[in-house]
Amino acid sequence: MPLPETLRAQLADRFGNRFSQGESIRLQHGRDESVHDPELPDGVVFAESTEDVSDAVRLCASHDTPIIAYGAGSSVEGHLLAVHGGISLDLSGLNQVHSIHAEDLDATVQAGVTRKQLNDALKGTGLFFPIDPGADASLGGMAATRASGTNAVRYGTMRDNVMAMTVVLADGRIIRCGSRAKKSSAGYDLTRLLVGSEGTLGIITELTVRLYPIPEAISAAVCSFPSVDAAVNTVIQTIQIGIPVARIELLDPLTITAVNRHSKTTLPERPTLFFEFHGSSASVEEQAQFVQEIASEVGGEHFEWATRPEDRSRLWQARHDAYFACLQMKPGCKAFPTDVCVPISRLAECIQETNRDMAQVSIPIMLFGHVGDGNFHLVVLVDPDNAKDMKEAEWINERVVERALSMEGTCTGEHGIGLGKKKFMLREHGEGAIDVMRALKTALDPNNLLNPGKILP
Amino acid sequence: MPLPETLRAQLADRFGNRFSQGESIRLQHGRDESVHDPELPDGVVFAESTEDVSDAVRLCASHDTPIIAYGAGSSVEGHLLAVHGGISLDLSGLNQVHSIHAEDLDATVQAGVTRKQLNDALKGTGLFFPIDPGADASLGGMAATRASGTNAVRYGTMRDNVMAMTVVLADGRIIRCGSRAKKSSAGYDLTRLLVGSEGTLGIITELTVRLYPIPEAISAAVCSFPSVDAAVNTVIQTIQIGIPVARIELLDPLTITAVNRHSKTTLPERPTLFFEFHGSSASVEEQAQFVQEIASEVGGEHFEWATRPEDRSRLWQARHDAYFACLQMKPGCKAFPTDVCVPISRLAECIQETNRDMAQVSIPIMLFGHVGDGNFHLVVLVDPDNAKDMKEAEWINERVVERALSMEGTCTGEHGIGLGKKKFMLREHGEGAIDVMRALKTALDPNNLLNPGKILP
Repeated sequence: MPLPETLRAQLADRFGNRFSQGESIRLQHGRDESVHDPELPDGVVFAESTEDVSDAVRLCASHDTPIIAYGAGSSVEGHLLAVHGGISLDLSGLNQVHSIHAEDLDATVQAGVTRKQLNDALKGTGLFFPIDPGADASLGGMAATRASGTNAVRYGTMRDNVMAMTVVLADGRIIRCGSRAKKSSAGYDLTRLLVGSEGTLGIITELTVRLYPIPEAISAAVCSFPSVDAAVNTVIQTIQIGIPVARIELLDPLTITAVNRHSKTTLPERPTLFFEFHGSSASVEEQAQFVQEIASEVGGEHFEWATRPEDRSRLWQARHDAYFACLQMKPGCKAFPTDVCVPISRLAECIQETNRDMAQVSIPIMLFGHVGDGNFHLVVLVDPDNAKDMKEAEWINERVVERALSMEGTCTGEHGIGLGKKKFMLREHGEGAIDVMRALKTALDPNNLLNPGKILP
Repeated sequence: MPLPETLRAQLADRFGNRFSQGESIRLQHGRDESVHDPELPDGVVFAESTEDVSDAVRLCASHDTPIIAYGAGSSVEGHLLAVHGGISLDLSGLNQVHSIHAEDLDATVQAGVTRKQLNDALKGTGLFFPIDPGADASLGGMAATRASGTNAVRYGTMRDNVMAMTVVLADGRIIRCGSRAKKSSAGYDLTRLLVGSEGTLGIITELTVRLYPIPEAISAAVCSFPSVDAAVNTVIQTIQIGIPVARIELLDPLTITAVNRHSKTTLPERPTLFFEFHGSSASVEEQAQFVQEIASEVGGEHFEWATRPEDRSRLWQARHDAYFACLQMKPGCKAFPTDVCVPISRLAECIQETNRDMAQVSIPIMLFGHVGDGNFHLVVLVDPDNAKDMKEAEWINERVVERALSMEGTCTGEHGIGLGKKKFMLREHGEGAIDVMRALKTALDPNNLLNPGKILP
């Protein structure tokens, strides 16, 4: 599907050397961090402003050419792959932090600003932006995939933390949605409709996000358990008595093995919870004490806690490095990620049944996750060229998704649908809801030009 | 616009005496708590199940007859008025609490269940549902108008607290959206699109809402200030240092006069903040101390705080009764409500400028609101039959809305658009966003049968 000659000329004319058809640039924009095979766009435009995005979309639209928004390239479900060709619109040049309103706890940034860049810009304000999906993703990309991560149990996901956006529609028009008011009931919630729409309904070019005060005190704790059940019960009780825990992460024994090897730690190779508490000094101490009591009642051991930054990061290092530690368990492999989320009352059962599946395959699989939200990942280590590996990984993924759905959960807690999860959409939402999603897509992008082939089955 | 004879026969056949065309029932369903003149529906159907709703919608749709969902009738912007005739669909008979999942902190209820009914059903679980718009509204209606209230600063609005829904579409089809997973990035967020859509995109018949642990301790505080500025600064600092305050309400001097008269209290007639803190015993004490320090630095006086339930309710009684106390300042009057929300950094300025407008009219106006969110109301007391009163009220409302919008706020923080705020939609959202809302409405309700004439200008 080569680009129409006129469009090529128009893009070259409008964007000069910010329009490229070079092989390596196209390859870089036609793959993601996942096991999906690359699918190259026909060209890449490097946008630096909302007007650039609007013009690029308008030009592409006039030639029926698809447009795929590209942030930091850190998505994992094939979101960026140019399965219908077209132009990849690289938004990393939209990298300005427009304003920080410290009194209002919000900041307005361009879509290419990454979460670390925003947090750097916030230094000295006493505020931070908490959403942390692991990768240093762009905030526009995080909004587009409704990202979250370890802090979500306390601070919510991108759904909860985007207040307003500037969006380019499929015909190039620019709209604003939302406002800087903390709440509003003024009409349809376009912001929430666009958050998580993966560039298929509009392209986010600017967003206003919520900020939070850096807590006066932060403490961390680690505790190991005789069983996943005991660990999950600790999580349930912690949340149920209202301890405002900021992070609760579960690592399974094989993940602990991986981190012990990678980080030279000596953690017991058992189901392990990592906690982080935010609050006043007195409050974080009280929170840690409560949790220790709950944990020890169900057999939790080796409870360690720390408030000094260096001790905290020592404790949390294992968790931070878990993904890379896992990858090193099978050098040269790739990770096939799963991402289910279930009501927390079903979590232990979901993990136990998944463990039984894991025992039936030969590939190494580690399990860890954001258990405060009922969300966990399997890191399934595969050689993408090995058919048996891929078949086993697919089987495990389908099993865990079917299980999560049968437990009133979701096929993806935070990674999004992209290409990889499309086949589960009908099962998760039912025909009626999928029809509604299709109707919305047709209403906003009648010619199917915005990231076509994604989300909808 | 009388109902088509065939439709009348079909509704009578399907619903028996749950279909009525009696004058008093139609009147009861054709007015709300506001100053809008009644607009009667042509008939009322009392639904008791999702299937009832689906059948009623299907029958009406086959005769191009509008359908207006009716919950508890407590909305205030003319949401329920049958401006294009049609059938009012009374959902109060959908009054079952289906399930309470204490471990998962969620409950699934039918749309007609009221918030008090849900909280009664939660007795003994240690959990509560926090959203409190004042009236004992139905949860379906609260979702449909994206309601919130005094607790929103801590617990969010209906936007944040509806996890899943069963919805009847304009053609009678029944869909499910969302799930009981705490988070998901599986496709378009239909739940959030429908929350706040005021019955114009679909009719909510069932919903799953989030619950919260009843805090171990609750404390309340009241403090009066030399100026609105001082009070608002206290709020800003409280939030900015991360005190997880559960409620912060501002009452202006005239509101205090009204409550002193009504509740026989002797509060100083000055700008006054009411606080509520939730947490452990130690934590609420610490929170109250922090806030007292902040308040006294800006001249806050008469700081009273209480933890025992009877003392707390004595302190908060004034706030709870404020609306009724205000109404009694002009016997026989009605309240013309305003409902703007602005970034909190602009709040003091917004209130001061509004005070200057208030000085220019003859009708009594009280100001109070959920200042932690930047949301405040004017209770403008009018005789709806007095043209001068209504003209002054309209003028005040337009002034405060224009001011809020110029400060990056919204024309409605929690009441919704209905009929009353339609004229501000274009100014708030701009043409592009309104076009998108229209496209969504057309996609989901092509014949404009669901609550026609509301939200969209």
